[in-house]
Amino acid sequence: MSRVIDRCEALARISDSPDGISRLYLSPAYRDGLRLVEQWMQAAGMSTRVDAVGNQWGRLAADDPDAPVLILGSHLDTIPNAGKFDGILGVVCAIEAVARLHASGKILPFHIDVVGFGDEEGIRFAASMLGCRAVCGQWRDEWLELLDADGISLREALTAQGHDPVAISSASRAKDRLLGYWEVHMEQGPVLENESLPVGIVSAIAGAQRYTITLQGEAGHAGTVPMNLRKDALAAAAELVLTVERLGGAHDVVATVGRLQVYPGAVNVIPARVECTLDIRSTNDALLDEVMRQIIAESTQISVRRAVNIDWQNYHSAPARQCAPRFRQMFEHAINQIGLPVRTLPSGAGHDAMLMADITEMAMLFVRCKGGISHHPAEFVSAEDAEIAVDIVLNALDELAQTSGLQIKNAQGVVS
Amino acid sequence: MSRVIDRCEALARISDSPDGISRLYLSPAYRDGLRLVEQWMQAAGMSTRVDAVGNQWGRLAADDPDAPVLILGSHLDTIPNAGKFDGILGVVCAIEAVARLHASGKILPFHIDVVGFGDEEGIRFAASMLGCRAVCGQWRDEWLELLDADGISLREALTAQGHDPVAISSASRAKDRLLGYWEVHMEQGPVLENESLPVGIVSAIAGAQRYTITLQGEAGHAGTVPMNLRKDALAAAAELVLTVERLGGAHDVVATVGRLQVYPGAVNVIPARVECTLDIRSTNDALLDEVMRQIIAESTQISVRRAVNIDWQNYHSAPARQCAPRFRQMFEHAINQIGLPVRTLPSGAGHDAMLMADITEMAMLFVRCKGGISHHPAEFVSAEDAEIAVDIVLNALDELAQTSGLQIKNAQGVVS
Repeated sequence: MSRVIDRCEALARISDSPDGISRLYLSPAYRDGLRLVEQWMQAAGMSTRVDAVGNQWGRLAADDPDAPVLILGSHLDTIPNAGKFDGILGVVCAIEAVARLHASGKILPFHIDVVGFGDEEGIRFAASMLGCRAVCGQWRDEWLELLDADGISLREALTAQGHDPVAISSASRAKDRLLGYWEVHMEQGPVLENESLPVGIVSAIAGAQRYTITLQGEAGHAGTVPMNLRKDALAAAAELVLTVERLGGAHDVVATVGRLQVYPGAVNVIPARVECTLDIRSTNDALLDEVMRQIIAESTQISVRRAVNIDWQNYHSAPARQCAPRFRQMFEHAINQIGLPVRTLPSGAGHDAMLMADITEMAMLFVRCKGGISHHPAEFVSAEDAEIAVDIVLNALDELAQTSGLQIKNAQGVVS
Repeated sequence: MSRVIDRCEALARISDSPDGISRLYLSPAYRDGLRLVEQWMQAAGMSTRVDAVGNQWGRLAADDPDAPVLILGSHLDTIPNAGKFDGILGVVCAIEAVARLHASGKILPFHIDVVGFGDEEGIRFAASMLGCRAVCGQWRDEWLELLDADGISLREALTAQGHDPVAISSASRAKDRLLGYWEVHMEQGPVLENESLPVGIVSAIAGAQRYTITLQGEAGHAGTVPMNLRKDALAAAAELVLTVERLGGAHDVVATVGRLQVYPGAVNVIPARVECTLDIRSTNDALLDEVMRQIIAESTQISVRRAVNIDWQNYHSAPARQCAPRFRQMFEHAINQIGLPVRTLPSGAGHDAMLMADITEMAMLFVRCKGGISHHPAEFVSAEDAEIAVDIVLNALDELAQTSGLQIKNAQGVVS
């Protein structure tokens, strides 16, 4: 029925594990997956190569070898026990768009490079998006010494796949040749499904901050310490959880206390200590900072009122990345062209596009998924929605070509 | 300085463990502890025996062998890594009161039985207060098959200490011979210290209910699910924790969420499920039931509003036990006699007295402890406070004797 979905299914059958889908960066299944994708790229009229860090590339060339380059892509690695669409969908949609373009005989005035990145998930080594980092010129040789769970270093893993660890800088792409980077991705959230929309345009990739929070109160016997003499760390944490929820909900922010542990954690002992985490994200960095200021101010009030010490440690901080307005507009026009309403939404999750924003303008198109489920075997994207995404990419490619000021040739070689 | 404190220290040196105090029920150290207590009882003029279940008894006899019996006591077993005073203090204070009575030559018109119970803490077997249960006629032979952590059955443990497991019913005491049961105990809470009072009269031993509560929401990506589309089980649990605290604090109840676990418990995943416990106690059973009704009503509102399922399972329920008004009054007079203010307070913790209330009138006197700390090596009771407790017991014994309608003899055998 749908070549896009068929190919997602075909890749799902290539796994390092007999139970479920698993293609960790540079694993045997990862390499086998690349070979299959390479065949599809070649069938779509592309020349192919694997770069020094293990990303799969295909090029549908413009006539002029010195033409600028538009990159389309996403990632081909998975988490353990993954779904079929996270990352994969974007690579397969890009190949499909190129295949149709190639079949039409139209030659665009820029090269289209399709990329399948490695290591977006960052599962195998204590790093993430290694493939994209190398492309963006952010590679650091010290990463070669990182070890996976089996004690294999990144250097050894690269060498085993035939890569030269000292040549990785060659994977970086020259900024001045790039027109932009477009990424189709399953939404991984419930917004589009909730509004019965097949696709949405990403406004920006949220910035994120992460904290560990330690609340130190005083243990006591649950039967003998009156309520007014307690310093209950869990009651203080409960106030904090609700503060985070309220301030997150009042602004364009998502804020989550995902981990929370109580010590000593016995039915008849007043909690002495709680350790928990905060993950807070927004596409607006200034707003995120302001909400954090409010949360910490309320946390201080809770601490003083309850005589429970609350300690905050930030351990991750990444700024938001805006999607390029001109590409967003092209996606809007493309969506209008097929008669669908335009929905713009932020990406709360990180993507390769976040790093690509450092070297070129980027844009993302989200595709509806079932139940907002991702990172789970139950991931589902419909054939119809995937086809719509391919159509939008094709329409947007057309507008980019027409507004690029460069010459487009039809199948007869006639310049339009 | 103080024989009471010296003896608590002496018992503390008898331990099954080289590090810290540990005298679990029927252990070698438990038995050695009984032997030392027996010597002190004999030195105080008492005849002694160990009953069929391993409780240590001493009797300061009245002239009339058929006189009624007042029991004074507490427990001699400990938790692992215990303090020096929990239980011990009550037995040693009782022996001290008897020693002084005996030294005075006065003979009361009732027998005074001092008891050191075994197994109040309920650590060794999956049961608690076994010693006291046998005395109260609540023994069940199926308990003989209970195993400790080393696979030793209660039957074997009793036999190893020279007891006959089939004769345990002989440990039960005849209700119609009993005048009452008095227990001195360290407070194990901060109330008396907070009010600078050495002792307090217990109004009642709180009834208790325990629940496990399961909150089932929906997992989701912390970055991609907007705040208004979440079913966050931890946010629901946070509301419940604060509801429990508020409703507990508004009434004469203590209510504690002591254990709380979050699943899956990852920084970037919205909590799908929370399992937590509630421990709620009150000396007023009807009030406790009413507060529970309110908590569950609010829990239902939280559940409906958040679309998070909340399931309650009760797994423990014990009614409150009132201390006998006439004994409380005797303690009041005794406290007045030494010029101290009378403070009445509930016991939130369980004690042997709770079971003894099934067979006779009971009363408890609490002694101030440092920082409310108990079940910890840092337990501390001052020599001065212990002496005050002994004086109060002696004064109250005097009033009981004078109001009993029975004859009291002084050292010269003269009836007063």
